[in-house]
Amino acid sequence: MIKVGIVGGTGYTGAELLRLLAGHREVAVTTLTSRKEAGLRADHLFPSLRGHCDAVFSAPDEAALAACDAVFFATPHGTAMQMAPALVEAGVKVIDLSADFRLKDAAEFKRWYQLDHTAPALLEEAVYGLPEVNRHAISNARVIGNPGCYPTAVQLGFLPLLEAGLIDASQLIADCKSGVSGAGREARVTSLFCEAGDNFRAYSVPGHRHLPEIQQGLRVAADGPVSLTFVPHLTPMIRGIHATLYARLTQPGVDLQALFESRYRGEPFVDVLPAGDHPETRSVRGGNQCRIAVHLAPDGQTVVVLSVIDNLVKGASGQAIQCFNLMFGLPETAGLDAPGMTP
Amino acid sequence: MIKVGIVGGTGYTGAELLRLLAGHREVAVTTLTSRKEAGLRADHLFPSLRGHCDAVFSAPDEAALAACDAVFFATPHGTAMQMAPALVEAGVKVIDLSADFRLKDAAEFKRWYQLDHTAPALLEEAVYGLPEVNRHAISNARVIGNPGCYPTAVQLGFLPLLEAGLIDASQLIADCKSGVSGAGREARVTSLFCEAGDNFRAYSVPGHRHLPEIQQGLRVAADGPVSLTFVPHLTPMIRGIHATLYARLTQPGVDLQALFESRYRGEPFVDVLPAGDHPETRSVRGGNQCRIAVHLAPDGQTVVVLSVIDNLVKGASGQAIQCFNLMFGLPETAGLDAPGMTP
Amino acid sequence: MIKVGIVGGTGYTGAELLRLLAGHREVAVTTLTSRKEAGLRADHLFPSLRGHCDAVFSAPDEAALAACDAVFFATPHGTAMQMAPALVEAGVKVIDLSADFRLKDAAEFKRWYQLDHTAPALLEEAVYGLPEVNRHAISNARVIGNPGCYPTAVQLGFLPLLEAGLIDASQLIADCKSGVSGAGREARVTSLFCEAGDNFRAYSVPGHRHLPEIQQGLRVAADGPVSLTFVPHLTPMIRGIHATLYARLTQPGVDLQALFESRYRGEPFVDVLPAGDHPETRSVRGGNQCRIAVHLAPDGQTVVVLSVIDNLVKGASGQAIQCFNLMFGLPETAGLDAPGMTP
Amino acid sequence: MIKVGIVGGTGYTGAELLRLLAGHREVAVTTLTSRKEAGLRADHLFPSLRGHCDAVFSAPDEAALAACDAVFFATPHGTAMQMAPALVEAGVKVIDLSADFRLKDAAEFKRWYQLDHTAPALLEEAVYGLPEVNRHAISNARVIGNPGCYPTAVQLGFLPLLEAGLIDASQLIADCKSGVSGAGREARVTSLFCEAGDNFRAYSVPGHRHLPEIQQGLRVAADGPVSLTFVPHLTPMIRGIHATLYARLTQPGVDLQALFESRYRGEPFVDVLPAGDHPETRSVRGGNQCRIAVHLAPDGQTVVVLSVIDNLVKGASGQAIQCFNLMFGLPETAGLDAPGMTP
Repeated sequence: MIKVGIVGGTGYTGAELLRLLAGHREVAVTTLTSRKEAGLRADHLFPSLRGHCDAVFSAPDEAALAACDAVFFATPHGTAMQMAPALVEAGVKVIDLSADFRLKDAAEFKRWYQLDHTAPALLEEAVYGLPEVNRHAISNARVIGNPGCYPTAVQLGFLPLLEAGLIDASQLIADCKSGVSGAGREARVTSLFCEAGDNFRAYSVPGHRHLPEIQQGLRVAADGPVSLTFVPHLTPMIRGIHATLYARLTQPGVDLQALFESRYRGEPFVDVLPAGDHPETRSVRGGNQCRIAVHLAPDGQTVVVLSVIDNLVKGASGQAIQCFNLMFGLPETAGLDAPGMTP
Repeated sequence: MIKVGIVGGTGYTGAELLRLLAGHREVAVTTLTSRKEAGLRADHLFPSLRGHCDAVFSAPDEAALAACDAVFFATPHGTAMQMAPALVEAGVKVIDLSADFRLKDAAEFKRWYQLDHTAPALLEEAVYGLPEVNRHAISNARVIGNPGCYPTAVQLGFLPLLEAGLIDASQLIADCKSGVSGAGREARVTSLFCEAGDNFRAYSVPGHRHLPEIQQGLRVAADGPVSLTFVPHLTPMIRGIHATLYARLTQPGVDLQALFESRYRGEPFVDVLPAGDHPETRSVRGGNQCRIAVHLAPDGQTVVVLSVIDNLVKGASGQAIQCFNLMFGLPETAGLDAPGMTP
Repeated sequence: MIKVGIVGGTGYTGAELLRLLAGHREVAVTTLTSRKEAGLRADHLFPSLRGHCDAVFSAPDEAALAACDAVFFATPHGTAMQMAPALVEAGVKVIDLSADFRLKDAAEFKRWYQLDHTAPALLEEAVYGLPEVNRHAISNARVIGNPGCYPTAVQLGFLPLLEAGLIDASQLIADCKSGVSGAGREARVTSLFCEAGDNFRAYSVPGHRHLPEIQQGLRVAADGPVSLTFVPHLTPMIRGIHATLYARLTQPGVDLQALFESRYRGEPFVDVLPAGDHPETRSVRGGNQCRIAVHLAPDGQTVVVLSVIDNLVKGASGQAIQCFNLMFGLPETAGLDAPGMTP
Repeated sequence: MIKVGIVGGTGYTGAELLRLLAGHREVAVTTLTSRKEAGLRADHLFPSLRGHCDAVFSAPDEAALAACDAVFFATPHGTAMQMAPALVEAGVKVIDLSADFRLKDAAEFKRWYQLDHTAPALLEEAVYGLPEVNRHAISNARVIGNPGCYPTAVQLGFLPLLEAGLIDASQLIADCKSGVSGAGREARVTSLFCEAGDNFRAYSVPGHRHLPEIQQGLRVAADGPVSLTFVPHLTPMIRGIHATLYARLTQPGVDLQALFESRYRGEPFVDVLPAGDHPETRSVRGGNQCRIAVHLAPDGQTVVVLSVIDNLVKGASGQAIQCFNLMFGLPETAGLDAPGMTP
C-alpha cells in the first residue's frame, strides 16, 4: 500500500480526495491534517464517509508527513510552498492542489496572489499536472502543481485548435460557468444558498487569478503569444464547470470533429462527443472525465467549443489522483473508474 | 377600466400576465381563453392567484375577444397570425407574445418556424415591441410583435455600442444563459427537475430561432450588416436570463460607462450599474428591469457587456404590458412598479 | 406619510421590509440603521431595490428613531429590548421582529435565549402580533412581539381545532420544513449552497426556540395545557415554510372543512383550500397569505393539517406590516396586496 | 460472469442499475430492453455512461432474457407479472423493482393498482426484498419483490421499536419527504423544474400506494395489527428520502440508542448515527446506506426516528443489487461499496 498524507482535509477538495481514495485499492491515507479540526474524525465532518474512512484530523506534523510516500496539499495558497521543500528533500512526492506551483513565473504569482514565492527552485522544477499535455514529465516529477478547475476545462478545449495553428490566438474568449463548490467550503455570504441559489451572475470580469494560468498553458500549445478574454460566472449548481470557448478560424474547411477526436484518441479521461452534440455537466458529476463538443457557428468562422468537467474531480482531486497514479506507475485510471452520477 | 383578453393563459407567460395585471389598476381581464382548460378557474391552475383573479378559462370566442380593447396572445407561434387580422379589423389592439409578428421577413419566418405566414400585411404593419427603440411607434401601433426573451437582453446590451459605431459588427458574440421557465410549462423530459436541476448545458449551437430576431434588431442599430454568434445555455434556476456579450472595440479610449448611462438615461426599465459592477439575475426576479454593466476586458480591446432580465417579465409579459401602457396612453410603469424579489 | 424607522436592515427580514414598504403608499422609511454598514446605500447591498429605495444605512441614533412614528426591529434577539423602552416613552410604536417580546414569561425567555430580559414591564404590555388571534389588541398596542415563522404556520393550522376542543391537546405533532432563508443572511457553513442544496435534514429535534412560543399560543387557544412535538427541517428552497400537523380527533363526525372555513372567513390573509387539496409553498412566495388544507387520514382518527407561508412575509416582515397597518388604522392589506410569485 | 438482463432501462432506476452494475466485477449486462428506444445505445440516452457501458436497447425478447442468469424489471407495474412466470420457469432469477410482487394480498394489489394480478402463484412465492428482514429467504428466492423507496426508509426506522414491542402500534406517523427523482423520468408537468423547484408540498394525503406495502411490513415486525398515518411530500432535490417517524413509547426508560445499535449491528447498509445526531440525505447520495438517528422528544413520550436513504439506490436499484448478491452467493456489498457523494 502506498502511504498517503493529506494536508488540509476539511474543504471540498480534501473531502473529495478522501472519497476517491476510499475506492483506490493501492492507497492508505495515513496522515490527515487540519490545524482547526485536530482530533476530529473525518467522517464526523463528512458523514458520507462513515464506514469508508477512519482517518482522524491531526495537527500538521512534519515527521508524520515525511513518512508518507506522497502528500497532497488541499490547502489555501501559501501553505504548500512553505512545507513542500522539506518533504521533497525527504523523498516524498508532493501534489499541490493549490496555486503555489502552477505559475512558472514567480513575479506573476506575486502579482495575482500577493505573496512572495518562498520556494522558487522547487517552483522551477514543478510540473504542471495536466496529463493530457505533460504525461511523461508528471511520471517523473517530484512536485506537481495541480491545475485549477477553470484552466483544466479551458485548456483541454482550446488545445487541439492551438496546437494545430488553426485559430487566431490573439482573440480567444472563454465564457465559463462554475458550480458553487468552486468557491470552497468557507462561510461566505456570497456562497449562501439564498444568495447563490436561483441566481446567475458573472464575477471578476476585470481580472481573475486563473487568467494567467490559462494563458501560460495556451502559450505553450500555441507556441507563441495568446490573448484571452476570460469571464467566469457562478451558476446555481453544486458541482461542474461548463466552458464555452470562442475562436476565429484562420483556415477554411477544417474537419474540427476529426481534429478533436484525433488529439484525444486514447486519452482515458477526455471524451469527444459525436458531432452536433452538447455536453452537460451532470454527465461528469463525480467522475474524472472531461467531455468536449466542437461546433462551427452559423457564421462559418467562429469555432465554439463546449467543455465540461466536475470541478472537484477532473478540476481538482481526481486530476491530482490521476497525476499520483502516473507518478507511482499505477494504471492511470486507478480509483477513478466510476462513471458520473446521473441524475 | 380597459377590457383585456388573454388568449392561451395556461402557460408561464399567461400566468405572469395574470399576476402582473392583478396589480394594474386600469385593467380588467374580461376574457381568458384556453381550448384545453375551458371551464376551469385560472386560480385553480395557479393557486397563487387565489383572491386576486376570478377569471375562468373559456374556449376561444371571437366575439368575446372582439369586445375587448386589447388582446394579448400567450400562445405557441402560429395562432396569433390566424386570429389577429379580425381583431384588428374590429378595432382591438393586439399584443402578440409569440413569434408571429417579430420577424419582418415572412420568408425568414417560414425558414425558422416552418410555417407560411398567413397575415403578411399585418406583419408588415406590426411594430416590434421594444420600447427602448420603438417607443413612439408602439404608442401608435395596432399590432405588436413582443420581443423574445434572449433578443431583449441581447439587443439592450449591444444597442449603445452599435448605434455609436464603436464595435466591429462582423464578429459579435452573445453567450446567453436562461432559467428553465424559458422552455415553458409543457411536459418535456428535458425540462424535468431531475434533468435540468444541478446541471448546466448549451443547446442549439448550430442555430436557434432567436438568432434571426436578434440580428434583425442589431442591423437596425448598426445601420448595416451584423454577424452574431449566439449560444444559448440552460441554467438550473427558474427565472432569469444573463447575456454575456463580447465585441471588439474599433476605437480606443471610449468612455463605455458614460456611453451606456447616456443611452439609457430616463429609461424607466433599463438600469446601468455603476462601473465595475456585475448584475445578478435575482436582482430583477419578478421585476421588469433590465440591468446592465459594461466592462473593458484586460486585453483592452474586448468589450464585455453583462445584461440581465427576468425572462417572464421584461423578456415577455412585463414588456407586453409596457407596450400596452404606451398604446393606451397610460404611465409606462403602470402595473410594473414592483421591485425584483431578493432573495 | 407615516415616518418609519428600521433597525438592522441588512438581513433578509430587513430587506423584505424595504421591498414591501416600497409599495406601501402611506409610508416613508426615514431611518435605516446598521452599525456595520453605516454609510452604505441599501440598494447597493440589495440591488433589486435600485430605483425603489434611496435609503442609506446609518449608525443607530436614538434621536432619529424617536422622531419616527413607528420603528421595526429586524435585529438579532437582545437588541430590541434594550432600545424599545425609550422609543415607546417617546411615543413611537415598536414592532419587533426578533424574539424579545414574544414569550410572556421572562424566565422562559432566559432559558431559551440565555439572556436576562431587560424590559420586563414592556414585555408584559407587549402584544403578540398574530392578527388572526389578537387583532383588537394589536390595534391598540404600543409594542408588538412579531411571531416567529414556524409559530405562525403552526398556530394558524392548529387554532381551529384547539379552539373548538376537537383534538387531544396532549399529543400534538408539528413536522415543519423551512426554506434556507429562515437561517438568515449570516455567513455560516450550514447555510452554504453546497451544504443546504440538494439535501434535506432535520435539526434541533432535542429542542428548538420556537417550541415554547408555539406552546404558549396553543395553550391560549386550547384554554388549557398542551404538549407538542416539534421537528423542524431544512429544505433546499429559498423561501417558504410547510407545516404538516398531526392531531388525534376526540370526536367523530366533525366537518373539518367547514370548521376551518368558518374560523377564517373574512380573514384577508388566511386562505382555506378546497377539500382534498394540498397547498404548495410557492403559491405564497413573496405574498402574505397563509394557505391551509385540512385532511382526515385514512385511519379516520388523525387530522392532518397542511399550512404554508412565506417565512419572510407572513412569517416575518409581511406580518409585521400587517400589524403596523392595524396600529395606524390603515387597511390591513395596505402594501401587502400582491399575489405570490409562481413560478 | 453472471449474465444479467434489464427490462425497461430508460427510466432512472434502469439508469441507476447500469451505473452501479458498471462497477460490479461479477456481472455482464447482456440484454437491455426498451420497446420505445430499441436500437439506441444506452450511453446516448445517459451520456454519463459513455466509456462504461456499451449496451444497446433492444425490443423485449423472451429468448434473450431467458438466456440470462438474472433479470431485473425496471418497468411500470403490470409488466413483470406478465413476463416473470416464463423466466422463472426457464431458471432465471427475477428481481422486480416495480410493485408487482410486493403486496402479498392480490386483492390489495388490485385495489391500489387497478390491475388483476396475473401471476398469483408466483406472487405467493415471491420474497419481499428487504435484506435486513428477509436475508435468508432472499438468498433462496426465485422472485424478489424489491421494496418501494418510502417503504424501505420507513420500515427500517420503525422495525427496532416494533419488534421490541416498545411503541403503540395503533398510532404511528410517517412524515416523508422525497426528492423529485422518485416521480420517475416521465414528462409530467408536476415534475418540471419550474413546478417542483424552489417549492415544497405534500401529496396523496388521502391515500398513497406505499401505505399498504409499509403496513404489511410493519404488521410482521409488530406481530399484530398496526395503524399508520403516512404523508409523503415532494422536496426540491434530485435524490433522497427523509422519513421522520413518530411513535408513542409504551414503556419508560428504554435505551433507544442501544436498541437501534443492537438491531443493526453487522448490517452492511444500515448505519445508526451517534446519539443526538441528525442524518442528512446527501450523506447517502449515490450510496446504498440507510442512515438512522433516534431521539426522544422533549415530551418524554414521543420517539422521533430520522431515516434517510437515496431513493434510487437503497430505495430501488442498490437494494435490488443487494438482493441479487445474496441470491448468487456474492459478497452482499459487491458493486455497492462506494461512499455517498458529498457535496
